[in-house]
Amino acid sequence: MNFLEKRILKDGIVKSGNVLKVDSFLNHQMDITLIEEIAREFKRRFDKKPISKVLTIEASGIGIAAFVAKEFGVPMVFAKKSKSINVDGEMYVAEVVSFTHKNKNQIIVSKKFLQQDEHVLIIDDFLANGCALQGLISIVESAGAVVDGCGIVIEKGFQYGGRAIRNMGYHVESLAIVDAMDSETGSITFRDQKND
Amino acid sequence: MNFLEKRILKDGIVKSGNVLKVDSFLNHQMDITLIEEIAREFKRRFDKKPISKVLTIEASGIGIAAFVAKEFGVPMVFAKKSKSINVDGEMYVAEVVSFTHKNKNQIIVSKKFLQQDEHVLIIDDFLANGCALQGLISIVESAGAVVDGCGIVIEKGFQYGGRAIRNMGYHVESLAIVDAMDSETGSITFRDQKND
Repeated sequence: MNFLEKRILKDGIVKSGNVLKVDSFLNHQMDITLIEEIAREFKRRFDKKPISKVLTIEASGIGIAAFVAKEFGVPMVFAKKSKSINVDGEMYVAEVVSFTHKNKNQIIVSKKFLQQDEHVLIIDDFLANGCALQGLISIVESAGAVVDGCGIVIEKGFQYGGRAIRNMGYHVESLAIVDAMDSETGSITFRDQKND
Repeated sequence: MNFLEKRILKDGIVKSGNVLKVDSFLNHQMDITLIEEIAREFKRRFDKKPISKVLTIEASGIGIAAFVAKEFGVPMVFAKKSKSINVDGEMYVAEVVSFTHKNKNQIIVSKKFLQQDEHVLIIDDFLANGCALQGLISIVESAGAVVDGCGIVIEKGFQYGGRAIRNMGYHVESLAIVDAMDSETGSITFRDQKND
């Protein structure tokens, strides 16, 4: 079991509806020491790729992606969820359905910040049905840039997003894959991964 | 002129309606080297305070606050803008009007993550009319915690938020205060500050 799986078992809370609450250390309160360890692990797993930019989506991906970008010594870009008056000019746009909020959003990235032939590492905190990640991939490819990998903190392995995106040929690394959880007993089953 | 003011003059763009676009380095694409320098400067300015937690609000404050929390060696908490099914239990709530999006949001922080007598440093990227900052202050005080300071990257000095919050007795440090800007000439006038 790796450092993240241990932390999830210690502080994660399983709620009904397949909700895994990790808000005490990942996506509401952030344990910065843990986030730095996550960032170093993504650096290790994607170290051979010529990453020139880290891309994530607001909000909870931002803190993680910022430390990953620091590890690679490159800028970080976060996609925004709705058109703001502060974001004008030409945009790449994708549609994303949120599992958490049960609604549909456009996500946008300014064309200025994704160049052709750029090598992009996409980072997010959760992967479930894969809609957010597919939106980010579509934006990178609209720019003519290369998706060199997708680094996910927690994947819900019992949903189809991870499998679908790996089947499309993308290199997805999830630091913890939850294959099953039970809100009555609180038990969490992680997938064995060779990388640990 | 400090490092941030220099960077704003180099890469910031003044748009009509008193909009200052800093999306190439601060709030869409993030220059992580600059963010680290900003974090070290907040550490220097609030170094005598016994900070136990850094608080910000999603989304663009998160990357900055995460590096500030690293400098202080404490956790970071970000307030969320709407009730999510992943955030249950007891919450502190404040109402905030967004200048950028022209709408009203509730911002929420789980009561678990702000304890009585905790010493909180509030961090945000912009201070204009001060609504977001006042919402965060109100949440900290609802918890019986202490606002030890407010660290702002860019303050619009020609709006009333900064003055109002300083008049209430809070220690606000803004790394750059824009007293005037002109979208026709692109000129930006910074306030002289003794700290630089």
